[in-house]
Amino acid sequence: MADQYAVPVNPSESPESTPGSGGVPALRWEEPPEGPVIVLLDQRRLPAEEIELLCTDVPALVDAIGTLAVRGAPLLGIAGAYGVALAAARGFDVDESAAMLAHARPTAVNLAYGVRRAQDAYHGALKGGADARRAAAAALTEARALHREDAEASARMAEHGLSLLSELRPGGGYRLLTHCNTGALVSGGEGTALAVVGAAHRAGELRRLWVDETRPLLQGARLTAYEAARSGMAYTLLPDNAAGSLFAAGEVDAVLIGADRIAADGSVANKVGSYPLAVLARYHHVPFIVVAPTTTVDLRTAQGSEIEVEQRPGHEVTEFAGPVVPEPGAEAGTGVPVAPLGTQAYNPAFDITPPELVTAIVTENGVVSPVTEAGLVELCARSRSGNGMMSI
Amino acid sequence: MADQYAVPVNPSESPESTPGSGGVPALRWEEPPEGPVIVLLDQRRLPAEEIELLCTDVPALVDAIGTLAVRGAPLLGIAGAYGVALAAARGFDVDESAAMLAHARPTAVNLAYGVRRAQDAYHGALKGGADARRAAAAALTEARALHREDAEASARMAEHGLSLLSELRPGGGYRLLTHCNTGALVSGGEGTALAVVGAAHRAGELRRLWVDETRPLLQGARLTAYEAARSGMAYTLLPDNAAGSLFAAGEVDAVLIGADRIAADGSVANKVGSYPLAVLARYHHVPFIVVAPTTTVDLRTAQGSEIEVEQRPGHEVTEFAGPVVPEPGAEAGTGVPVAPLGTQAYNPAFDITPPELVTAIVTENGVVSPVTEAGLVELCARSRSGNGMMSI
Repeated sequence: MADQYAVPVNPSESPESTPGSGGVPALRWEEPPEGPVIVLLDQRRLPAEEIELLCTDVPALVDAIGTLAVRGAPLLGIAGAYGVALAAARGFDVDESAAMLAHARPTAVNLAYGVRRAQDAYHGALKGGADARRAAAAALTEARALHREDAEASARMAEHGLSLLSELRPGGGYRLLTHCNTGALVSGGEGTALAVVGAAHRAGELRRLWVDETRPLLQGARLTAYEAARSGMAYTLLPDNAAGSLFAAGEVDAVLIGADRIAADGSVANKVGSYPLAVLARYHHVPFIVVAPTTTVDLRTAQGSEIEVEQRPGHEVTEFAGPVVPEPGAEAGTGVPVAPLGTQAYNPAFDITPPELVTAIVTENGVVSPVTEAGLVELCARSRSGNGMMSI
Repeated sequence: MADQYAVPVNPSESPESTPGSGGVPALRWEEPPEGPVIVLLDQRRLPAEEIELLCTDVPALVDAIGTLAVRGAPLLGIAGAYGVALAAARGFDVDESAAMLAHARPTAVNLAYGVRRAQDAYHGALKGGADARRAAAAALTEARALHREDAEASARMAEHGLSLLSELRPGGGYRLLTHCNTGALVSGGEGTALAVVGAAHRAGELRRLWVDETRPLLQGARLTAYEAARSGMAYTLLPDNAAGSLFAAGEVDAVLIGADRIAADGSVANKVGSYPLAVLARYHHVPFIVVAPTTTVDLRTAQGSEIEVEQRPGHEVTEFAGPVVPEPGAEAGTGVPVAPLGTQAYNPAFDITPPELVTAIVTENGVVSPVTEAGLVELCARSRSGNGMMSI
């Protein structure tokens, strides 16, 4: 049975490892006397409450992933890796746990990637003659490496993204539009698209961050606004519907979003609403920039149409239920109905933006623009130490 | 002081004058012994409750208009006319009341139009030698005429719209996407865009009505779904963000929306989110059809940029407060916060779609397509008895 405990955050005890989230890391590993746990900042409760969720087993973590207590492509990869390490450390079946974790959500490729890395490290250690305890330690070491790499990738994406902005929009004073949440809450570092925004802010070059509220789950209103406020950015929240008015008024210099999976052809799966923004950006000749680590690029998925798009329950649309935590096991009926009873809803979590609508993809290894398969392959092939700017 | 009373609807007492709303008319005039009242179906409470609001004076009606208890361009015109009749019948200052009503909301041109018609009838009667009582009766007669004309216009728009659909998409079985609410709740009849959908439904030609939830106030989820459900349509609700996915999947045969004001050049002011739909429709080669009576065409406004777009309070975005009625006078703080305290929001109620993105405008006098100023002028000039199909 899933074991989760909710614990109010005591700020003085929290390490300051992820600056963008204001001191409360989105995820950390702890080893109290009762045994190792994964500690998550419960993103369902933000911005109303900062509550940490302690997961002592993989079913608890899978539940946290499925209900979006922990979310965002890079962070899901880190969570998956630590989840395997947790299963190993607590003596659960590692492969069964890995399979559960890898399938907790279908679209973000990073989740399966993180799981696989820790799982491979575990089995590699066993094959090398390690006992279960040392194999578990190898899985944990790998999770920590992924966590650290993600923070480093975040910093390099911020750097590349800021350079790209200064090329595309010389003169600075950027008015940037973003969708969903892509900051420290999704990352071991400062995130993806929001890391670029943060770099622009620190460079004194952010005039305005336009924050799409991001229906149905309001990650923009709840999470990006939370991070922007804590970072002291000049930001304005808007209903997703109002983005068109901003474009028409010439108030957007660039769109910056993250990605949950990038196919080999450069098609980008990201939070639903990204594709309409890409079409609007194209119509108004505004750069549409995707920021994601190379771990989000899935070269085994040839094109966008092959990406599985998660369909989420209709009650996320027909009821208002946040920012609160639904009762355990509750599927519907726990929120305030906003539509007639019995209303069916179409609720895809993601959409697919084709490469021809993407101005550039920014990774930790550089920028690909225009977006081509060859460009993506080359970026992914680079050693992680490479950090050059690439234009194809 | 504004005088409103909320009264639960007793269905057996309600006239069945507006079929689409399931028997509860959006607005009616009553003359109980205590004096005349305007009775509104309180749209803020739908679909949770069917409550009628009795307005005994113009400030109460202005409040109902400002808080969207009554809304929608054609119905606002009818409400404005009855409001003037109410002021006259109850002995209030008619011109002062008319000025208050005409400025209760700035974008919908019908409101000022309805007010002016009743006001002109009142003054015309006085000039003709009538006393105040008979002048008030003249204002009421004019309001009733407008009410009836709107119902007739609605039926003719439905007819023209259905013909247009069969021209644009031969074969029937339409999958229609709509935004906001444009049905019996905004009209003396069955509405504008939703009247066309209703005609398609009765003709057995509606395969699916896609209902945009329409943030921030969820008129699609609360009101269009309510009307669609009562009419037995096959409908599916979606977050506005998901419309792009439907277009990309080829699941939309046409977009049908209403209008709050149409400028002489054919620019259409409508609920925020309409313009992004128009851009998406163009990108996917899907017809984008605006349905509105000629009373919504404002030939004195030359172009879209001259239309005043109402900016509504940020708390409609930063807080969730529906479907309930906020405390009287409450400006903020009455809903559940969904964004950090202090968050500023950009909340335009409408956006402007330029004529080049509009496939056709359907009025009670016929269809103009492509949309040109000459075509609009001709439609507006036609006698109301004309009902020909027009292609320019």
